[in-house]
Amino acid sequence: MIDVQNQKDKRNIPIQRVGVKGVEIPLRIEKKDDKEGLIVYCRATMSVSLPSCFRGTHMSRFIEVLNDYKEKCLLSSDIEKILFNVKNKLEADSAYIKLDFKYFIEKQAPVSGYKSNMCYDCSFEGEVDENCNFKFYLVTFVPITTLCPCSKEISQFGAHNQRALLRIKVSYDNNHHIWLEDLIKLAESCSSSEIYSLLKREDEKFVTETAYQNPKFVEDVIRDIVLKLDSNDIINFYEVEVEAFESIHNHNAFAYQKCSK
Amino acid sequence: MIDVQNQKDKRNIPIQRVGVKGVEIPLRIEKKDDKEGLIVYCRATMSVSLPSCFRGTHMSRFIEVLNDYKEKCLLSSDIEKILFNVKNKLEADSAYIKLDFKYFIEKQAPVSGYKSNMCYDCSFEGEVDENCNFKFYLVTFVPITTLCPCSKEISQFGAHNQRALLRIKVSYDNNHHIWLEDLIKLAESCSSSEIYSLLKREDEKFVTETAYQNPKFVEDVIRDIVLKLDSNDIINFYEVEVEAFESIHNHNAFAYQKCSK
Amino acid sequence: MIDVQNQKDKRNIPIQRVGVKGVEIPLRIEKKDDKEGLIVYCRATMSVSLPSCFRGTHMSRFIEVLNDYKEKCLLSSDIEKILFNVKNKLEADSAYIKLDFKYFIEKQAPVSGYKSNMCYDCSFEGEVDENCNFKFYLVTFVPITTLCPCSKEISQFGAHNQRALLRIKVSYDNNHHIWLEDLIKLAESCSSSEIYSLLKREDEKFVTETAYQNPKFVEDVIRDIVLKLDSNDIINFYEVEVEAFESIHNHNAFAYQKCSK
Amino acid sequence: MIDVQNQKDKRNIPIQRVGVKGVEIPLRIEKKDDKEGLIVYCRATMSVSLPSCFRGTHMSRFIEVLNDYKEKCLLSSDIEKILFNVKNKLEADSAYIKLDFKYFIEKQAPVSGYKSNMCYDCSFEGEVDENCNFKFYLVTFVPITTLCPCSKEISQFGAHNQRALLRIKVSYDNNHHIWLEDLIKLAESCSSSEIYSLLKREDEKFVTETAYQNPKFVEDVIRDIVLKLDSNDIINFYEVEVEAFESIHNHNAFAYQKCSK
Repeated sequence: MIDVQNQKDKRNIPIQRVGVKGVEIPLRIEKKDDKEGLIVYCRATMSVSLPSCFRGTHMSRFIEVLNDYKEKCLLSSDIEKILFNVKNKLEADSAYIKLDFKYFIEKQAPVSGYKSNMCYDCSFEGEVDENCNFKFYLVTFVPITTLCPCSKEISQFGAHNQRALLRIKVSYDNNHHIWLEDLIKLAESCSSSEIYSLLKREDEKFVTETAYQNPKFVEDVIRDIVLKLDSNDIINFYEVEVEAFESIHNHNAFAYQKCSK
Repeated sequence: MIDVQNQKDKRNIPIQRVGVKGVEIPLRIEKKDDKEGLIVYCRATMSVSLPSCFRGTHMSRFIEVLNDYKEKCLLSSDIEKILFNVKNKLEADSAYIKLDFKYFIEKQAPVSGYKSNMCYDCSFEGEVDENCNFKFYLVTFVPITTLCPCSKEISQFGAHNQRALLRIKVSYDNNHHIWLEDLIKLAESCSSSEIYSLLKREDEKFVTETAYQNPKFVEDVIRDIVLKLDSNDIINFYEVEVEAFESIHNHNAFAYQKCSK
Repeated sequence: MIDVQNQKDKRNIPIQRVGVKGVEIPLRIEKKDDKEGLIVYCRATMSVSLPSCFRGTHMSRFIEVLNDYKEKCLLSSDIEKILFNVKNKLEADSAYIKLDFKYFIEKQAPVSGYKSNMCYDCSFEGEVDENCNFKFYLVTFVPITTLCPCSKEISQFGAHNQRALLRIKVSYDNNHHIWLEDLIKLAESCSSSEIYSLLKREDEKFVTETAYQNPKFVEDVIRDIVLKLDSNDIINFYEVEVEAFESIHNHNAFAYQKCSK
Repeated sequence: MIDVQNQKDKRNIPIQRVGVKGVEIPLRIEKKDDKEGLIVYCRATMSVSLPSCFRGTHMSRFIEVLNDYKEKCLLSSDIEKILFNVKNKLEADSAYIKLDFKYFIEKQAPVSGYKSNMCYDCSFEGEVDENCNFKFYLVTFVPITTLCPCSKEISQFGAHNQRALLRIKVSYDNNHHIWLEDLIKLAESCSSSEIYSLLKREDEKFVTETAYQNPKFVEDVIRDIVLKLDSNDIINFYEVEVEAFESIHNHNAFAYQKCSK
């Protein structure tokens, strides 16, 4: 059967990224406190570069490589292995992957101590370039509460507050490791108040008062997280964004910072 | 050229709805205070019933009918005309349409009086049955603020509040008319506080204090809107739902009611 | 601490549904061929009716009930137990639940036999009414290929085809059981061709030729699935919809049927 | 009333972007063939940089600036004016804007000549930096058909095809102008076949046969568009991505290229 993808291409254009998106697969991710790991729902993007001489890449091989890692308990360091497998199997100069998954962490309510699950959108992202340099990114989206300092200051009582989403993307040297659990805690520590799935009345009182005593603009959240990321010696790159779903508007406030150390 | 859709079908199954979804079209909608109307971005769903004897319907005719109404300034009463046109053009027993559009209303900030636009997701929905009875539904999604009565009561200061979305769907006799402007005002009057696009500091103070003095569970919002819809003699059907994007959780609270008078 | 939710409400309006939406939780679902079941990512909606006398319901109890079922291997029959637990814990007359989850099934490519995962959006939906009657619904969204019979017939070569999504919702007597695996197979058997995650060239040839030899309008897909559901003695209710993401348009074609036997 | 945003901040961190997202507003965009322009539904993102000394920015001013441009007929060159207004009004070093809007173009069916509207997601994106340099980006998402060359080659009859989305982002010198109409035509010329809202049978035959005679991988689409963008002297930057919603898979194939000349 003819291999159309392998046909010569005469347009003389190498392509930077060719691949698949929206590949759904169950993966197992190692947790900080559980070697067995967690089975997660994952949507994968995978691509390779394509030399100018070939007409197309062999897309089914991405799925084959991914299937090989279905049973394993993944750490961020496995991303490098996956990428080199992709690179070899598709005879490519460079390779890219992003695994977007739903990560659950058990969390205790602040006063009652009741336990429940919080779900965080997280990603492992990585690339290997033509010189075989590997770069890894850890990404998490953390829901938090922000309470408006201006609203508190100018009002006789109350202050508008809302759910906000803090996205953190970091990179670090390959001989180090950062757990999602720790990155999420870092994010939550920069909020007006953390968010929980299960709160009894004593917890709701605590969360309400904590937020009121700890007012933060999106600008404050970004500066607080930037301070913590700047002082972290392992992290050599970060991109952070907080978006607050303003309770008094139908649009959102946001702040954004990106830094390569 | 052969007409495959017109071929006889032997499975003996009439189909209730066959048609198109996600048809994007600019429409002109009449405003309460502006005969010229407003040009809106619309996504249309249109369908007809299909008798058991025919294999398929002629989908392109939906688009043709819709195009005929592109230039006109639509009122809810035009929906009936569109449906009868569809019914005739496709020789169908019954017809259905839903026009989902982005509707803008200019709104004044409560203290400063500054004007800005609020955008509301709205729909005109209608059907004509095999007995030529016409039924029309008016739908709107109104963003509001809710402030939690429990959080206010049990906390020394502050109270969690958040953006919420109140969906109202109503039907009424065809010899009456309800303006979107009025339905949206009704919805906003059942909130802890209305929402605005543009608020100066004096407005933010007003909105914050209003919400604090007017705490509402989703249950309160639903009961308040139900009371108003029950007492409206024109309305003969309603379905209402409010969903609050809780600032202390990553999930939402909701309340729902449906009623045919 | 005062219980605001338990306060008397004087508006005299019982509410049909009060509860939570978008609760994310990992659940374990029993598979047809695996008693151990599958860990799935789930988004839950849960609600109860609220008598006119109470101001609010106790939302945290929904999460508590759900947490109790986190470790168990769920069958559709467990939905009844969850609902009665909710009803008791919240002292409610009626209760409702919908669990939307990502369900994976291993599937073999049609010629090469290569195995890979297909992901299907599925739901368990149930309600218990004031007379303690339990009603259960099984829902699945199945991606398929449809190839247009008209395009094939009128064109010298080729025929437009596209991904389509077939949604099936069924209900059946509580002393019976239908596996998601079987419902999904039923859906796939009504397509122009099934869809796979991993196809080698010999499979792609097979899938292309199968679709071409098996052209179907959305009307054909609906009639074929309706025939199969009508002839199934266990099923006492169904609602089916197929939506085809037309490759020649930027809008979709759909067909819909609902039936209570 | 105290101005909390103007308070001194001691964390010594200037912020790159602070602003608003999801601001909905109706705008008027000038068309190539219509000086009157088109009223479009727009979602805006606007931000400024914030010096380290100030605690927050004044978010309401973004809305004020945007409101000033509501009635005007916008060209891409107006983006520069908006940005300088934002910069001045918020006393900022740099400013950023992205206007995402729904753009309609009337299109004729290829054989019958019937006219209908196609809707394209488009954006005007711009930034002014601390040196007052202005950079503008024009973005469009164009739905097209792709027909698989491999599937055609290896199959006795037929070939799988599908809707795909081609995103093009370009930048060019400020003394030039590129119309959305022309950028969209460029995109459509790189497809297996263009897409239309309204096709009669003779058009459907044409579109089906055109796609079959013009098979393209996502790799082919990207190379064809890259060739055209490379040979355009006005364009000094481009980023292109095509994503095909494969009819034989439930995931997508994509190709991506970025280039600064």
